[in-house]
Amino acid sequence: MTTTGKQIFTTLESDGTLTVEVATSETPEPKGNQVLVKMEAAPINPSDLALLFGQADLDNADYSEGKIVAKMPEPFNSGSKGRHGQRMPVGNEGAGEVIATGDSDAAKALMGKRVSCVPGTAYAEYAIADANMCLPLGDISSKDGASAFVNPMTALGFVETAKMEGFKAIVHTAAASNLGQMLVRICQEDEMELVNIVRRQEQVDVLKGLGAKHIVNSSDDDFMKQLRNAIDETDAFIGFDPIGGGKAVDNAFKAMEQVAVGKMPEYSRYGSNQQKKMYIYGRLDLSPTVLTPSYGFGWTLSGWLLFPFMQSAGKETVARMRKRVLENLTTTFKSEYTKEVTLEGMLEKDAVLQYRQMRTGEKYLVTPHG
Amino acid sequence: MTTTGKQIFTTLESDGTLTVEVATSETPEPKGNQVLVKMEAAPINPSDLALLFGQADLDNADYSEGKIVAKMPEPFNSGSKGRHGQRMPVGNEGAGEVIATGDSDAAKALMGKRVSCVPGTAYAEYAIADANMCLPLGDISSKDGASAFVNPMTALGFVETAKMEGFKAIVHTAAASNLGQMLVRICQEDEMELVNIVRRQEQVDVLKGLGAKHIVNSSDDDFMKQLRNAIDETDAFIGFDPIGGGKAVDNAFKAMEQVAVGKMPEYSRYGSNQQKKMYIYGRLDLSPTVLTPSYGFGWTLSGWLLFPFMQSAGKETVARMRKRVLENLTTTFKSEYTKEVTLEGMLEKDAVLQYRQMRTGEKYLVTPHG
Repeated sequence: MTTTGKQIFTTLESDGTLTVEVATSETPEPKGNQVLVKMEAAPINPSDLALLFGQADLDNADYSEGKIVAKMPEPFNSGSKGRHGQRMPVGNEGAGEVIATGDSDAAKALMGKRVSCVPGTAYAEYAIADANMCLPLGDISSKDGASAFVNPMTALGFVETAKMEGFKAIVHTAAASNLGQMLVRICQEDEMELVNIVRRQEQVDVLKGLGAKHIVNSSDDDFMKQLRNAIDETDAFIGFDPIGGGKAVDNAFKAMEQVAVGKMPEYSRYGSNQQKKMYIYGRLDLSPTVLTPSYGFGWTLSGWLLFPFMQSAGKETVARMRKRVLENLTTTFKSEYTKEVTLEGMLEKDAVLQYRQMRTGEKYLVTPHG
Repeated sequence: MTTTGKQIFTTLESDGTLTVEVATSETPEPKGNQVLVKMEAAPINPSDLALLFGQADLDNADYSEGKIVAKMPEPFNSGSKGRHGQRMPVGNEGAGEVIATGDSDAAKALMGKRVSCVPGTAYAEYAIADANMCLPLGDISSKDGASAFVNPMTALGFVETAKMEGFKAIVHTAAASNLGQMLVRICQEDEMELVNIVRRQEQVDVLKGLGAKHIVNSSDDDFMKQLRNAIDETDAFIGFDPIGGGKAVDNAFKAMEQVAVGKMPEYSRYGSNQQKKMYIYGRLDLSPTVLTPSYGFGWTLSGWLLFPFMQSAGKETVARMRKRVLENLTTTFKSEYTKEVTLEGMLEKDAVLQYRQMRTGEKYLVTPHG
């Protein structure tokens, strides 16, 4: 027996026409380790936006009730060839009530419970999720449990990565985001030093309010000096950057190298021996990443994604991380939302143009059942 | 007892004045594991040029007998703060005759022998070298033994790196260089596939003459298509780049990802799961490295330097590599030189302006004793 409900789909045609719409869909019966979740809340994360809209021209799109038709400009349309013609569900994560299950013990144990889940189809009234990826929320509301996966596991993943690679301090750019605030709290708990780079005074104040020790404002004239000082005090030679484009990574490498060279007893044409690592985990800025030849050859820049990280970290580490998230969901891993929208409300022009900016502190929550 | 001889020094003052000159210097008696080498031949490698001249304005320098005085422009002068006021010897490697030794067995065993060595002061009539880094040349001439370290060990190091990281094919840019030609021969011997990227038809011809199978000309209109095809045929998802600046790395990542995506059964917003690796091992182009957001997050870009590689590879691997170089110095690891110059000749304007271009197939050999 299938369950009928509303769901958001995004479809890009080869001519560059992008259609995002609320449609009626049939969710199949859960099998084996699957559960059927009545979705109550789902956050709009940057990774969701990439699939939902990509680089489509949303200022000049056609908006009607529960439907957007927009144009995807080049080179992004050609670059998305792989999805041409495919009608794709959206929504990485969310929370809701388990109303049916497959016949595995893990699935059956969740019957009737409120859970956070990672269905990949969360912008829907009903979604099929893997029982192993569900966290039973107990007394915690679906709203508080909606973002229990992407941001918490990513922020924890940074600290795990830094520890695995032998670093004792981290640089984080765009550090005042929901994820950045979580990272501040995690690092305080784990006694990992953290250099927070932000670009506005309000963001400095937000992080100060959380007790962050090292906050650097990239809009200040002496930004690079501030950054060098913070790295010098903390030995932060690993960093995570959600911006991607421009000089965010370059600035971090430069400051790291200048600090390291300052500690060398003699000149080397090859630069310092200090290994410098940066990870790009998002693309808030789609312009090219620019790396200047000013920090020798002792550096590594890599992409960072949650699922490959989880695979390489192994089951035990991931289970430990998940447990920590669940136990601290309303404190360390708390998310804040600016606004709640229904599935239809999510596709209204005003809402779209606001949440698509991905501005710090402006996060939307989708409530599929209103 | 010290030995008196001529030697080249490079000195950068804080005001940006660079002086490179042939001077008389006293070489101390070799101690312990050291040997004193009468230098007969030393190559001018890109890594030597970086220390010798950096980005100094050599077109408008003052040239006199055995002396150059030039200006180091900004931002390179400030960027070289670490060497301001230091009179530095130059010349990574070379070959010559051991005329005195320290008292270790390894050192004494080399007495009277012709060796290749890595003194770091090779542009000199006499140099102190570490016996452990010397290769006894036997019948091989000093000219043939002069480049037994930097290029051979670097080219071998690429193949070792690729093997250690589980790759079975390599992309190499600027592939017609001395080092690139060695890499072609090594890869043939090791059955490692190699995608050679060059930028001129003559270079295509040179590599064809060596029996290279996959040669891609970046000046051709269908360069990216050629590159994709070569990667598709070889599975070359690791690459080495001596250019650094511009889009050489970006093009390789793009082509690798397009090949990998073409082999995926379904679309993923995160790109392929194929790990893509590029190493920058030189900076022939000092403009910034440009990375576009067109290959997901499954990539790593790193600097690559010989000494850190050797440290991480361990003594046994390095000993095996050194043995292989010595046994094949006039075949696999042969270097070609355009011209021989004395220490004074090395500082003449015509010579400087030519070898400083680091053009493919134009390599100079310094013969300190004429």
